[in-house]
Amino acid sequence: MSGTWNPARMRDVFERVKNWGRWGADDENGALNLITPAKRREAAASVVAGEVVSCARELAVQSSVENPNPALHMMIQGGDDCVIPGVGLEAAMDFVGVAFHGMATTHIDALCHVFVDGLMYNGFAATEVKSTGARRGSIMCARDGITSRGVLLDVPRTLGVEWIDAKNAITVAQLEATEKAQGVRVTEGDILLVATGRDARRTKHGPWSPMADGLAGMHPECVEWIHDRGVAVLGSDGVSDALPNIDIHGWGMPIHQCALVAMGVHLLDNLRLDRLGDACAKQKRWSFMFTVAPLRIERATGSPVNPIALL
Amino acid sequence: MSGTWNPARMRDVFERVKNWGRWGADDENGALNLITPAKRREAAASVVAGEVVSCARELAVQSSVENPNPALHMMIQGGDDCVIPGVGLEAAMDFVGVAFHGMATTHIDALCHVFVDGLMYNGFAATEVKSTGARRGSIMCARDGITSRGVLLDVPRTLGVEWIDAKNAITVAQLEATEKAQGVRVTEGDILLVATGRDARRTKHGPWSPMADGLAGMHPECVEWIHDRGVAVLGSDGVSDALPNIDIHGWGMPIHQCALVAMGVHLLDNLRLDRLGDACAKQKRWSFMFTVAPLRIERATGSPVNPIALL
Amino acid sequence: MSGTWNPARMRDVFERVKNWGRWGADDENGALNLITPAKRREAAASVVAGEVVSCARELAVQSSVENPNPALHMMIQGGDDCVIPGVGLEAAMDFVGVAFHGMATTHIDALCHVFVDGLMYNGFAATEVKSTGARRGSIMCARDGITSRGVLLDVPRTLGVEWIDAKNAITVAQLEATEKAQGVRVTEGDILLVATGRDARRTKHGPWSPMADGLAGMHPECVEWIHDRGVAVLGSDGVSDALPNIDIHGWGMPIHQCALVAMGVHLLDNLRLDRLGDACAKQKRWSFMFTVAPLRIERATGSPVNPIALL
Amino acid sequence: MSGTWNPARMRDVFERVKNWGRWGADDENGALNLITPAKRREAAASVVAGEVVSCARELAVQSSVENPNPALHMMIQGGDDCVIPGVGLEAAMDFVGVAFHGMATTHIDALCHVFVDGLMYNGFAATEVKSTGARRGSIMCARDGITSRGVLLDVPRTLGVEWIDAKNAITVAQLEATEKAQGVRVTEGDILLVATGRDARRTKHGPWSPMADGLAGMHPECVEWIHDRGVAVLGSDGVSDALPNIDIHGWGMPIHQCALVAMGVHLLDNLRLDRLGDACAKQKRWSFMFTVAPLRIERATGSPVNPIALL
Repeated sequence: MSGTWNPARMRDVFERVKNWGRWGADDENGALNLITPAKRREAAASVVAGEVVSCARELAVQSSVENPNPALHMMIQGGDDCVIPGVGLEAAMDFVGVAFHGMATTHIDALCHVFVDGLMYNGFAATEVKSTGARRGSIMCARDGITSRGVLLDVPRTLGVEWIDAKNAITVAQLEATEKAQGVRVTEGDILLVATGRDARRTKHGPWSPMADGLAGMHPECVEWIHDRGVAVLGSDGVSDALPNIDIHGWGMPIHQCALVAMGVHLLDNLRLDRLGDACAKQKRWSFMFTVAPLRIERATGSPVNPIALL
Repeated sequence: MSGTWNPARMRDVFERVKNWGRWGADDENGALNLITPAKRREAAASVVAGEVVSCARELAVQSSVENPNPALHMMIQGGDDCVIPGVGLEAAMDFVGVAFHGMATTHIDALCHVFVDGLMYNGFAATEVKSTGARRGSIMCARDGITSRGVLLDVPRTLGVEWIDAKNAITVAQLEATEKAQGVRVTEGDILLVATGRDARRTKHGPWSPMADGLAGMHPECVEWIHDRGVAVLGSDGVSDALPNIDIHGWGMPIHQCALVAMGVHLLDNLRLDRLGDACAKQKRWSFMFTVAPLRIERATGSPVNPIALL
Repeated sequence: MSGTWNPARMRDVFERVKNWGRWGADDENGALNLITPAKRREAAASVVAGEVVSCARELAVQSSVENPNPALHMMIQGGDDCVIPGVGLEAAMDFVGVAFHGMATTHIDALCHVFVDGLMYNGFAATEVKSTGARRGSIMCARDGITSRGVLLDVPRTLGVEWIDAKNAITVAQLEATEKAQGVRVTEGDILLVATGRDARRTKHGPWSPMADGLAGMHPECVEWIHDRGVAVLGSDGVSDALPNIDIHGWGMPIHQCALVAMGVHLLDNLRLDRLGDACAKQKRWSFMFTVAPLRIERATGSPVNPIALL
Repeated sequence: MSGTWNPARMRDVFERVKNWGRWGADDENGALNLITPAKRREAAASVVAGEVVSCARELAVQSSVENPNPALHMMIQGGDDCVIPGVGLEAAMDFVGVAFHGMATTHIDALCHVFVDGLMYNGFAATEVKSTGARRGSIMCARDGITSRGVLLDVPRTLGVEWIDAKNAITVAQLEATEKAQGVRVTEGDILLVATGRDARRTKHGPWSPMADGLAGMHPECVEWIHDRGVAVLGSDGVSDALPNIDIHGWGMPIHQCALVAMGVHLLDNLRLDRLGDACAKQKRWSFMFTVAPLRIERATGSPVNPIALL
């Protein structure tokens, strides 16, 4: 991490990676524009074993320090009272509800999820996200799903540690060292997944508070690297940002702010990447076909998802 | 449709297509067992154009005669009050909740969704679906997503009609005529999608009540054909069953009852298949890669989904 | 109903009944200020029989034409799985959720529920009701409950009909005729309940759509009468307004608009008044102690309630 | 507290205070039967000042160690998008949802909330509380509200402490000493409120975990006293039970178990009693009119409430 980071430098980075207007003044797709039919064909062609691996956590219905607003999963009708009168059918039904943002649910952030100075990606006003939902930047730009080549950078594996400590924000050098160690290179239109070992730490020590105790993620210096490589979607087992952020006043989550707002790069938060890491290590391949299928929720700021890697 | 249909005959079909014990006494995957790694490789290899098509409807948040229990989508925080104190971040967030079964939300039915005589697939008791959720047959058997070859049988297109009338339940002869017309054949491990033209009718006439006014679907005689072909997952723009069912007392939804309970075939209900039909017609191919990624909701009787076809 | 009603006349009434500033520029209690300790003592002193009558409908969990957004009531844990591990307790628990505004749930409207020209009671801006809740005019002004003398004007009983037709909006003359027939007079600080016979009609004909088929209520000419009498809270088995409103462009619900916004009079919508009418008729008394206890929901635009009359 | 407490002794108490069959084999009202019209008249007649005091906490929408499942309060429509098309109305609306049991929401427990050995009050089976709701013992027995004389026993005030420590379970001697100090006596049909000073402790130290760190309440020896006095409803700023309970294996919450199941006494949990204590102390009266108005939720195990004292 060369040099000092301060608000002025962060702002400078933010301006340099801005994709506003790049795909038109009215564009709401952002870096999804980098995923072309050719890229999807490349992704499909990369399938070798036919092995599927989910990168989602189980829906977090239990309260914990990392999950203050647990998801709701409730039965409407169970097996003890399952006869539907007049239909000639025995059935069970349930309800699921979730405030998916936060640190516990695997979800995708729409571009309207974050603002900088009251503006979202491509310069639309924050107030376009009304009390009745988002008029601009909603998750509906991904309504046909996101399918591309996925690349996993398993940084702890490269470093020979179980997990990255929150204080040691991942650097560009570490990303590139991981590329080298894994024999893979992030290219334009890729979905980049950066593992921090959060699953391993949680398995060993149980959940902790990301805001109070920190969460591993990338140093803000990675922003330009992500931009230069043409990453289409960025995901992590954490939230991509290292928390709490290094002291850059006013930039609480620089990766979120630069990815969503400046670059138009959608984020996948709270993935599980341990199973995928194991599968990749076994197959000695760190790229794969990757599919994310957000629910078609009009005006939504994101969606819970179950992203699937196909190796 | 040869001969008369009565409860005894339906029961007989139910018994003949039973897969209970076929994959072990403890199996909860059912016909998903038919989707092998080789099948997934076949699916990926079939991608030609790199075109993605979603088969989901927009989340049905408005009440209507087909949607008596609308989904909830509400903002937690919009652009008018988006500064998160102490974090240095401006963000918008929302909540989504849905009782996904019924006739309006695109969803997958878990095998525990339906019972016959108090039993679900593989003979587990209905009471395993407790007030606190399903202990057997939950959607978690599809936790890594469902990826296979998909086949669309666009029956109205073959018949030269905009949509199938609810009273004219789709027959085996019509399925096979559609295969022939489209130059495709349903094979073991396929995800079979049967279009009835529901989207076209709704576009033209608005929503109607499936229970009161009927919903197009398949005749119960199709059950054995589905079984013989080795269908892994069955989907429709309706609910696969023709509603109201032809008069077979006690068998209100024979496709649901035979697919979920006897065969262990998961169902995809309330798909949108018009966009997929157009894409297939344009490309003159009626098979494609198909991915369904249910949310990882433990103990759930299904999940809202956004199924993605990749042609 | 003397003379013609048009927007200008309605606006004139709105201005004449305005209580803005009457109880201070910062007041958020509105006409609740008219309920004094003395008034509450009067209410308590009026109790004769010790008979309690609820004026609420059962929570409307079933969808219908009058209830497009049914309330949610779901078990978290039932008797089939009731042992709480580690606690030594068997318990059942549930969840209740409701979007209480509308035409089906008995609820109280907070003063911030309605705006005229972007302003709520006492001139606060509509934008004080943010995506995160109401900063002004919330139901918390009734946090200690509302207890006063209640008066029921059972108009259909006076007119000798089962119910009022939606087209025959209730007039001042009818209100006063009912007072006379019942031997009661509405006085300052009273909670006025106006019955239209909606319960009787629903019992006989089932639910109907208030927006499409109309809902009985008061003519806008009643606004000034309500103001002159010093009504503190206004309730009805409908929504006080006659729907659809007589043709006054831009004034869709004049009673709501004048009561909530101009006068600061809270409204009770969708009451059951048939049981109370019977009890009053039997006791030949049309005033009683009346208690409304809104849930203490900070920033809320109202609350579901179960108002209780004690005769 | 005389002698040793063990499961056998607790069972013996449970049997001695049983009201099963007392009001008929089919009774679901329990000790509410003790609240007669005369009792309500007595309550109303006791009003002197006309002062109202709410005994509810603000709906607990924020997660905390005492509130792992926060209530949902979300806007459906705020002031930034408030025009309802076609109606000629500007309105704001919201949704409220809550799993009201637990340690944070002011609520009433229905008699079906707790079971002992698979049975609820009056011997109904726990399985009558199905996945679709309670068929027996629901809160609907209080559908017309509960109005009676309330008595507050402010034990910490009598003891000269700010709050009772969880380890020092309140004894019969302390209840009677408080009666004496306050000049009041609990009589048949009363709603008894027992203050522990929880509000004062929370104000000073913030919320804590009742299960991990304990919660002040009554010793099991109070059960028979409550029974002998003919208490109709029992409430507390905690949950009446002292937590964790003194070591009586299998009796995790003896007050809950004996009150709800044996006696048929409804419970009010998580009240605020500090404001009421101050009002009583000022007026030097510890009895008052008390009204609880549960929402009319069919099949519910209780309801969130805002209980109102009128002095």
